Amino acid sequence: MLASNDMENCSGERLRVIGVVGGLGPFAGLDLVRKILRHTAARKDQEHLPLMLCSFPGKVPERPTFLLGQSSENPGDAIGDIMCRLARGGAEVIGMPCNTAHSPGILDRALEKLYRTSPEIRFISIIRSAVEHIRALQPAGGPVGLMGTEATLRTGLYQNALAEAGLEAVIPDGEDCELMQKAISDTRFGIKAFSDPVTQEARTALLSVAQRLIAEKHVSLLLLGCTEIPLAVTETLFQDIPVVDATDALARELVRASCPERLA
Amino acid sequence: MLASNDMENCSGERLRVIGVVGGLGPFAGLDLVRKILRHTAARKDQEHLPLMLCSFPGKVPERPTFLLGQSSENPGDAIGDIMCRLARGGAEVIGMPCNTAHSPGILDRALEKLYRTSPEIRFISIIRSAVEHIRALQPAGGPVGLMGTEATLRTGLYQNALAEAGLEAVIPDGEDCELMQKAISDTRFGIKAFSDPVTQEARTALLSVAQRLIAEKHVSLLLLGCTEIPLAVTETLFQDIPVVDATDALARELVRASCPERLA
Repeated sequence: MLASNDMENCSGERLRVIGVVGGLGPFAGLDLVRKILRHTAARKDQEHLPLMLCSFPGKVPERPTFLLGQSSENPGDAIGDIMCRLARGGAEVIGMPCNTAHSPGILDRALEKLYRTSPEIRFISIIRSAVEHIRALQPAGGPVGLMGTEATLRTGLYQNALAEAGLEAVIPDGEDCELMQKAISDTRFGIKAFSDPVTQEARTALLSVAQRLIAEKHVSLLLLGCTEIPLAVTETLFQDIPVVDATDALARELVRASCPERLA
Repeated sequence: MLASNDMENCSGERLRVIGVVGGLGPFAGLDLVRKILRHTAARKDQEHLPLMLCSFPGKVPERPTFLLGQSSENPGDAIGDIMCRLARGGAEVIGMPCNTAHSPGILDRALEKLYRTSPEIRFISIIRSAVEHIRALQPAGGPVGLMGTEATLRTGLYQNALAEAGLEAVIPDGEDCELMQKAISDTRFGIKAFSDPVTQEARTALLSVAQRLIAEKHVSLLLLGCTEIPLAVTETLFQDIPVVDATDALARELVRASCPERLA
């Protein structure tokens, strides 16, 4: 058996096993793994980091439904089970590519389960990863255009974290929030239904929201605060404005937590 | 805890957990997961299949080095450990996106470890998946242009499997075999060193080999028999000749083994 603490690469570096809570949605989990590989300095197989992905989408109820009070079934229970499964498999640092599931009402329940059996595991927050990345990118601050699901925006998850870092979040107008939500979850054209490739309609809708955040609200940075959005919007610069992808920021922090020398 | 046998989706279908032996190389593991998701009929998160990916590249020695007699360390031991880890995590059907590692000298050792503790697990062979797909595609037969690593070609893995199915394998000339191997593993431009995106040089080299298989050896189908190649060659048709991607064939068979009703 591979014990969790015997991982090292060919150079004898100590490598912590990365665990990814996938399935929220499945393509967002895949996207995070891809970005972990892209951020790893490696020229052959053996130089890549140890990682596990658990994607059990059928087990995890819709996050927005719970957060918006339409269901009492807390997805944090199933997410906690997946985290425990990763920990039993040897994961030492865990990331979850779903911003909405970082709402305290869900995440606290999941982490409570995880820490009860595996208190030594390090959970890397996508919210903190993204906010720290923005602070490093724009030390002077400036309004951050926040894109995400209605549930994420309503819980104030990013607004609070940005405010604590001295940054101001600017959210789209009501109609644009609805348009973003449709681009993510509409079963006719949304990213969750059509992920690979996404529909032109979803991409156009998201870019139009971004364009209005820039033109009408004068944001100096765009934050893709939903892990479905970077499946459609892959730009790192849009109309000369930097675009921060929260999944990408999380990938970097997971590589750093596994082995800082391997961060590319 | 999620038991392995309580997986069902929202329609109450029985879903077997798919386990992926990743890391051989890491981007090939990612590619298989992507193709599993693409072959799943799903319009929302909860309709996707349960799956686990274990990518522990630092633990698995180079496969060709062992097969070509340059090392006595059998990678099958580490691969067997990873399979056992997947089985303990709940995997019920296992796939491994690395053709070279399907050589009996490696695979038999790995499966022996797996079946000793988990005889009920179903291992889905990428070789058999690809050959069955070719048979369905070309019931009348015709010469199959085989592309892969030198180790895979030398072990006769595909040649034997194709012959058993009444199909003829045609392999590239010696210089072209070297060129394919470089396109895969050269540290300056090969796919293992530059996976995402691949280099134009690797892609051009592979397409030139494919072109000569068609023009000079008159193959009626191209088989991408190394899981690195489809990272560079994504065509399903090349110069009017069908291209069969072994990773894609394996993805389909894994979806079928998990839940046939979900195969898209």
